[in-house]
Amino acid sequence: MTDTDTGKTGPLVIFTPSGKRGRVDPGTPVLTAARQLGVDLDSVCGGRGICSKCQVTPGVGEFAKHGVTVAPDALSPFNSVEERYDRIRGLKSGRRLGCQAQILKDVVIDVPPESQVHKQVVRKRAEARDIVLDPAIRLQYVEVEEPDMHHPSGDRERLLAALGEATGLAGIKFDHHLLPTLQPVLRQGKWAVTAALHLRPEPTVTALWPGFHEGGIHGLAVDLGSTTIAGHLVDLVTGEVIASSGLMNPQIRFGEDLMSRVSYGMMNPSGADEMTQAVRDGLNRLFDELATEAGIDKATILDSAFVMNPVMHHLFLGLDPYELGQAPFALATGAAQALRAAEIGLDLAPGTRAYVLPLIAGHVGADAAAVALSEQPHKSDDLALVVDVGTNAEIFLGDKSGVMACSSPTGPAFEGAQISSGQRAAPGAIERVEIDPVTKEPRFRVIGSDLWSDEDGFAEAIASTGLTGICGSGIIEAVAEMRMAGIVDASGLIGAADKCGTERSIPDGRTHAYVLWQGDEDSPRILVTNGDIRAIQMAKAALYAGARLLMDKRGVDTVDRVVLAGAFGAHISPKHAMVLGMIPDCPLDKVTSAGNAAGTGARIALLNIGARDEIEAVVHQIEKIETAVEPRFQEHFVNATAMPNAAEPFPHLASIVTLPDVDFNAGGEGGGRRRRRRGQGDS
Amino acid sequence: MTDTDTGKTGPLVIFTPSGKRGRVDPGTPVLTAARQLGVDLDSVCGGRGICSKCQVTPGVGEFAKHGVTVAPDALSPFNSVEERYDRIRGLKSGRRLGCQAQILKDVVIDVPPESQVHKQVVRKRAEARDIVLDPAIRLQYVEVEEPDMHHPSGDRERLLAALGEATGLAGIKFDHHLLPTLQPVLRQGKWAVTAALHLRPEPTVTALWPGFHEGGIHGLAVDLGSTTIAGHLVDLVTGEVIASSGLMNPQIRFGEDLMSRVSYGMMNPSGADEMTQAVRDGLNRLFDELATEAGIDKATILDSAFVMNPVMHHLFLGLDPYELGQAPFALATGAAQALRAAEIGLDLAPGTRAYVLPLIAGHVGADAAAVALSEQPHKSDDLALVVDVGTNAEIFLGDKSGVMACSSPTGPAFEGAQISSGQRAAPGAIERVEIDPVTKEPRFRVIGSDLWSDEDGFAEAIASTGLTGICGSGIIEAVAEMRMAGIVDASGLIGAADKCGTERSIPDGRTHAYVLWQGDEDSPRILVTNGDIRAIQMAKAALYAGARLLMDKRGVDTVDRVVLAGAFGAHISPKHAMVLGMIPDCPLDKVTSAGNAAGTGARIALLNIGARDEIEAVVHQIEKIETAVEPRFQEHFVNATAMPNAAEPFPHLASIVTLPDVDFNAGGEGGGRRRRRRGQGDS
Repeated sequence: MTDTDTGKTGPLVIFTPSGKRGRVDPGTPVLTAARQLGVDLDSVCGGRGICSKCQVTPGVGEFAKHGVTVAPDALSPFNSVEERYDRIRGLKSGRRLGCQAQILKDVVIDVPPESQVHKQVVRKRAEARDIVLDPAIRLQYVEVEEPDMHHPSGDRERLLAALGEATGLAGIKFDHHLLPTLQPVLRQGKWAVTAALHLRPEPTVTALWPGFHEGGIHGLAVDLGSTTIAGHLVDLVTGEVIASSGLMNPQIRFGEDLMSRVSYGMMNPSGADEMTQAVRDGLNRLFDELATEAGIDKATILDSAFVMNPVMHHLFLGLDPYELGQAPFALATGAAQALRAAEIGLDLAPGTRAYVLPLIAGHVGADAAAVALSEQPHKSDDLALVVDVGTNAEIFLGDKSGVMACSSPTGPAFEGAQISSGQRAAPGAIERVEIDPVTKEPRFRVIGSDLWSDEDGFAEAIASTGLTGICGSGIIEAVAEMRMAGIVDASGLIGAADKCGTERSIPDGRTHAYVLWQGDEDSPRILVTNGDIRAIQMAKAALYAGARLLMDKRGVDTVDRVVLAGAFGAHISPKHAMVLGMIPDCPLDKVTSAGNAAGTGARIALLNIGARDEIEAVVHQIEKIETAVEPRFQEHFVNATAMPNAAEPFPHLASIVTLPDVDFNAGGEGGGRRRRRRGQGDS
Repeated sequence: MTDTDTGKTGPLVIFTPSGKRGRVDPGTPVLTAARQLGVDLDSVCGGRGICSKCQVTPGVGEFAKHGVTVAPDALSPFNSVEERYDRIRGLKSGRRLGCQAQILKDVVIDVPPESQVHKQVVRKRAEARDIVLDPAIRLQYVEVEEPDMHHPSGDRERLLAALGEATGLAGIKFDHHLLPTLQPVLRQGKWAVTAALHLRPEPTVTALWPGFHEGGIHGLAVDLGSTTIAGHLVDLVTGEVIASSGLMNPQIRFGEDLMSRVSYGMMNPSGADEMTQAVRDGLNRLFDELATEAGIDKATILDSAFVMNPVMHHLFLGLDPYELGQAPFALATGAAQALRAAEIGLDLAPGTRAYVLPLIAGHVGADAAAVALSEQPHKSDDLALVVDVGTNAEIFLGDKSGVMACSSPTGPAFEGAQISSGQRAAPGAIERVEIDPVTKEPRFRVIGSDLWSDEDGFAEAIASTGLTGICGSGIIEAVAEMRMAGIVDASGLIGAADKCGTERSIPDGRTHAYVLWQGDEDSPRILVTNGDIRAIQMAKAALYAGARLLMDKRGVDTVDRVVLAGAFGAHISPKHAMVLGMIPDCPLDKVTSAGNAAGTGARIALLNIGARDEIEAVVHQIEKIETAVEPRFQEHFVNATAMPNAAEPFPHLASIVTLPDVDFNAGGEGGGRRRRRRGQGDS
């Protein structure tokens, strides 16, 4: 509890929940008292009783905790402004307008959350950082001096003077595109106007409305992935997401993966430009959808934040990603970009700004920076490994003493690509798998239903979606369960039916496959082939090798905790990930999911201007490791192709799971030698 | 002569013409010594022997004035860089490259004008301020660190670091439009690059060339008049005008004068937009012409400065001038505009900036601000009246203790409009007139010939142009000469032939006209009608009344000097102007012409960044007088319709010219009463 010495002898005012207190002159409006005492009480209209942002709830009676008794007449009675406001727009019972109610006697005043400028935005995960609402853009209502031919000055200049006085900000600038509408807007509002001020890099008027603007202002947080684009439309006054939508990245027609898009740019003279246009067109469609879904005027979208990997970054900004396709992976720019949305072809209001988070390195993008912003490894007390699992895995290792980052080329297997029955995570896809270690019979769950396949009603439950394939988390669980059930050995080889003890192992060319689902008239047979296992081994080995490389650099053999980020990361079971050896051994309860941390980071950057400074500073401090040229990366990769690993001990895993000591290579199956050379984990 | 204490005991170096001197360590390059001693020596390449901007001329022998003897080996001999430069590009005899020549012994070094950063640009008029070359834009050659995958950073970031180091400037920004070409440019230049830095409002890279850029950089100074647009293409390295051109303002098709254009905008929904487009199209044509005429690459035009009246200002910036058509004449903005040329539809390089000088008031424009910048009334020791004569006259009265300004609606008569035989100043127009006070016979000169009409060979001399009409300066001289010859009286009435003593006075409706030229088969008869005289009286009365109003406000009856600005002002004869009473009485040798001071002011703002600060400050300090609402303006106007004036004494004029005391109203000619009511000066 702070007690501010105001040098006054008038009534004592105590604000809750801040606990700030001090004496003010009798008759001081509550809003003025709040400002004198440094209390966070909002006001857009500057105390004119128009915006109602400064609503407060005065207490009455005995406040033992604060040592005051509040008389019923501690505040001045309702005045005409409050009466009019209550009559026309309605004031909640017990509420007062802080700009009108005057303090006459000692009083305790509660500032409800919605009246705080820097409101806290609720995040669902307990371990996540709080987001404090402090966006780059704010509204300010002002009354502008009328023109006087004896003291000629421009309407723009008088508006800026009024804004400077109301906000205390110096050197406010004015977007040129607003000039043509300025004179009509001022006259329509009878010299009252609401301005949107974008505060970075210098305070700038970016939108104007006549009179008091009721429609709010909005922002976009966009995670621009190689495969999908996810956008959130956010209310910049409440901080709430009011619409979310996604679409396939239209660049997919130029190449499924990033390197094939880089190649398309190299092979076609206007290839990079076509891809830039495609992604911008897609974004513009997405923004229209979001505005329609939320039922807002698109012209109120005034800020936006974007995250993406380096290749998408360059294509989005209109840069040829050619140099990113080859060492030394030179970025045209890696710094955060503060642009006008129109400069990068976005069909938003002309004053709308676009903030692009900084890149970390040639392979570690703004999406990774956003993960760092969301997960804060640089503020961690214990040593955290943060992995954003996608087509590339971005990996951070560190704590508050320092953070390292690298990227590892996992490929698309984790997203269901390169898997014989693989598909994206969508209704109809197998997402969870269990295999009985005795009977070696499987059961599974399908996206769209909560029932396991051996439960009553399963067939009916999936009738609408069908059973169409297996998604990334499904194949990971299937492979891990097969390993735990002794159907597959450490090297990744599936045993023949007689060796592994189940007729579900069937010959498949020179290797074997495990029949996860026999199929029926409505759905195909779903196998886990040895090729599928090989693809998962390659992907998880790349992920592990990247993490292990950072651990080498840090000089450690274990980490305190693991955070799995990425929409896919949210669905990975920690135990199965560890059976595969995707992540370093650690206590299972220390493996957590951060959900779509990149998207969250974009939302944080949209909502909190200080977070932009923070991440710009953090990316400079992060030590970047280029896996492609680290000799030990290959060695770690080779060891990590085994499940869980040919060289590293996994003591925590061993304490909860005993993996069958099987080896299906002894039988001299085809391809065994090849596998042994690459796997080396089956001895 | 300054002697800088460098704390060193090595050889003494004296730079001329600055006289700066000090001791340096033996072996110090001349460029380094110049920087240590604060000598203005240019260098774009930062001492790499590439740009040759730092050329100097060392002296040899006895320098009694400086008290040193310079040995032949005072500087190090030619090194390989200088030898190569001399072989390939040639070094003038006696010259050295300042970045290569090292100081070994006491030496006197002359910095030639072209090696100074802040060169002086020659102005022809002795009384004019000097223009010091210090443009908003500069070139800098740098070598950029190559990318290193172990220390990933963007090419842009490494370029900015190199520029920051080379220039000492902090926080250099980078135009987004350059990003797509940055990577190819750096690689084409083998990591050497020349950047154009625009210094306002913060240093920003606005153009890039691979390697060392040889093509120079250019700027445009544009005077955007209601009738004509004049553009100068300026070399920003030398400060010289390399091409000048003009065109009719294409807006003329929407209205000859400004108020008819304002009306066009009011009457037609997209009228203002059409006029904006017309003037921008015209400017783009002009810029193409200028670049072609000078033979330069238009992409090297990187800066521009614009001056114009308030209505043209608004139309140029895309603003509806509606409010300027009525009190209180509210400007949308009057502040100086620092824009990108592309923002206002100019087809220049994407990084090109446009600086628009500030307006002074609703009727006093950026062209007037440019006149103030050129003529500097705010720095005058004596009381100066500065008049920019055009369709409106902008008038300044003041000295270094303070300046007032107003605008007065003279109308287009001074430009030859509303005159029976009037035309613009062009070949074939009568520009000078003399009338013999005894014979009352005229002689005149025609634009395009130096001969008077009574000289031998005149007919041949004007054969090619013909004799087509009379321009503004011609009609002023004609009317003044008619007044001096007693053909017209103080009220402006032309006497009948018998009253004024010449058969050249012929009846013309209810009044008379004077036959200036009888005409022949090739040319029309040219009369000065009483209507012409009336038009000149109205125009000159408006001009005088504005000046007199400022004198009232200042509390003076006389001024120390008069400056006539404007292309037309350059051609007005001071004596004739004073006979008419256009300007207040003062010694004739104190009436000077400033030529196209508005255009000069635009060029000053283009060439000197400090001048932009200066004029932005000065326009705030100027006291603005709105003539339209000053009651005394009308009184001064009525008095000033007489020639020279019905109320004011003109003692200096009286001392050199005796005006005939004639009065042609007594004869009861038609219209006399009407004229008396308006003129009142004929008593």
